[in-house]
Amino acid sequence: MIVLLTDFGLEGPYIGQVKAVLLRDAPALPVIDLFSDLPPFDARSAAYLLAAYAREFPQGTVFVAVVDPGVGSERPGVVLCADGRWFVGPDNGLLAVTARRSERAQWWEIDWQPERLSASFHGRDVFAPVAARLARGEPVPGCVVDGATRVGGDWEEDLFRVVYLDRFGNAMTGIRADRFAKHDAIEVAGRTLSRADTFSDVPPGTAFWYRNANGLLEIAVNQGRADRDLGLTLGAEVNRIPANR
Amino acid sequence: MIVLLTDFGLEGPYIGQVKAVLLRDAPALPVIDLFSDLPPFDARSAAYLLAAYAREFPQGTVFVAVVDPGVGSERPGVVLCADGRWFVGPDNGLLAVTARRSERAQWWEIDWQPERLSASFHGRDVFAPVAARLARGEPVPGCVVDGATRVGGDWEEDLFRVVYLDRFGNAMTGIRADRFAKHDAIEVAGRTLSRADTFSDVPPGTAFWYRNANGLLEIAVNQGRADRDLGLTLGAEVNRIPANR
Amino acid sequence: MIVLLTDFGLEGPYIGQVKAVLLRDAPALPVIDLFSDLPPFDARSAAYLLAAYAREFPQGTVFVAVVDPGVGSERPGVVLCADGRWFVGPDNGLLAVTARRSERAQWWEIDWQPERLSASFHGRDVFAPVAARLARGEPVPGCVVDGATRVGGDWEEDLFRVVYLDRFGNAMTGIRADRFAKHDAIEVAGRTLSRADTFSDVPPGTAFWYRNANGLLEIAVNQGRADRDLGLTLGAEVNRIPANR
Repeated sequence: MIVLLTDFGLEGPYIGQVKAVLLRDAPALPVIDLFSDLPPFDARSAAYLLAAYAREFPQGTVFVAVVDPGVGSERPGVVLCADGRWFVGPDNGLLAVTARRSERAQWWEIDWQPERLSASFHGRDVFAPVAARLARGEPVPGCVVDGATRVGGDWEEDLFRVVYLDRFGNAMTGIRADRFAKHDAIEVAGRTLSRADTFSDVPPGTAFWYRNANGLLEIAVNQGRADRDLGLTLGAEVNRIPANR
Repeated sequence: MIVLLTDFGLEGPYIGQVKAVLLRDAPALPVIDLFSDLPPFDARSAAYLLAAYAREFPQGTVFVAVVDPGVGSERPGVVLCADGRWFVGPDNGLLAVTARRSERAQWWEIDWQPERLSASFHGRDVFAPVAARLARGEPVPGCVVDGATRVGGDWEEDLFRVVYLDRFGNAMTGIRADRFAKHDAIEVAGRTLSRADTFSDVPPGTAFWYRNANGLLEIAVNQGRADRDLGLTLGAEVNRIPANR
Repeated sequence: MIVLLTDFGLEGPYIGQVKAVLLRDAPALPVIDLFSDLPPFDARSAAYLLAAYAREFPQGTVFVAVVDPGVGSERPGVVLCADGRWFVGPDNGLLAVTARRSERAQWWEIDWQPERLSASFHGRDVFAPVAARLARGEPVPGCVVDGATRVGGDWEEDLFRVVYLDRFGNAMTGIRADRFAKHDAIEVAGRTLSRADTFSDVPPGTAFWYRNANGLLEIAVNQGRADRDLGLTLGAEVNRIPANR
């Protein structure tokens, strides 16, 4: 299975062209769009989403992960194998959190180039063809490199910021909810919010935090919109208020 | 074939995770996103859309239908078999209109749970795995229940409201157009509109109603937008003005 | 492979219904959404996008191309075979630029109708079933017609207008970038812009034009949005300022 996480948007011709390449190079393999609207150009936020969402997939899955503001510059493309899952993308930190949280991680720098390489669409021209090769069981077209020198190796364990706003106005953070105690509160946008198990546990209009279905700390309002009702935007800071304070 | 109708949005990781479960549990089966942007949290409006759109599909099709504001509360999950098509979703009325309009309908309450059940994403954790079982020809994991006691059993035959606004600003209603006579008019948002067969039958800028490609009464403006030009929003009331009045 | 280019939007039930028909009539064939948000009702702009994006696909690909403001009127449906690729859509100019740029082009007028034909959704009812037939290797259900009399045969070689705004605010034009010299500038929305190879070649906030990954002249702003920063809208005029002026 090949899984796509990108900031390309569902709009436009971008995802379709990536799928056409995968169909050409790995025809029998199913492809799943997991995230097509990662925060544009924000590799750091996306890195914490990727780490949270990729772990649900079986070993052998190949992820094409592209949030790539430096496309066309000198940043290399990399392959990561982390606990049996494969990741292909730019070396800009996007894969770093996944690597750090894995027990076994190995990195390669991609040294393969297609005959025709565009300056602005390496997702189609480099990362998709490399992912197809890996999915077919072929060796990585590149050299093993040291993980310690990859971009993002020094990023924080969890990102105490809003990293994604969904269709319903819920705000995902880069924090693994299990690192918080049940009675910890959070402070965000000047407000203090308690935890609830789920929406129906609080009265309509009440804001709260909860462990979302993929383990991230998420901020929501029952029958409301956290983005609008709390004034939350991408990047908004989140602080922990320990229960025993 | 498995068909998805949800309010998850195409954005975000929701549809992709549901597809990953279907791929794991029913690998050979094609999956079609029919509606990913049903009116959020509005099971009643969605029920009339589901009834109108499901009937185009062949017998044996399995529908995963999720508009589920009560997820995580005590509302049960149900399976409906209606005229040979299968439906899996929450017992909140979403499947009720489809059941009522069918000649043969049987209901089950789902009593199966996965090992790990999230509080907020039963579409992925319960309804998709159950749909995959049905699609593989396995028995329903649950007990037969009485259809008469399901939520929505007493809802109106047709819903005289706007239930969906599409990309072009056209407003679908919950009314089957064939229940109206050719010369009936409608009253909506303080305006009276006549019927036309299609867009090109009226001058540019003219609002009208027509029978859409799935049999619903739909409100449109030739070369305009009914939502903006008439001030229509989801839930707007629609009334019939009989031809002979 | 069947490739869809439409203005249906990803929202709503339109693409899903087209895919259901293709699955019914050509079950083994992969289907790719290349563009689901072509400029609504603007067959002329879409024609230049189709010509630029279709050429990347292998011979034998069948394209379903639908931007069809005249649906339900008398405009015929047509099939085009251009350099070994097949195109199915309305005769409103949408296929004309592709035909003109090909070495071998043959046209048919579709004379097939399904048993049930809606007035507003020929994409589902006519073009998809015809595309499935072609993809299965069956003959075109129609008569050969003269290409010279098709709508759009007299349209300009390249369209000097903005034809698409993408998720990032980049503005694609209907101009093949290779028709411009490296040092040509463009004039758009009262501004003069120079060429760059890619985003990272200009300082943040700088607007420029470049050859996009499919050969079109595209207008962008490094770390900004060309639509907002330059006030660009669909249809905005673009002029060439030759290097030696």
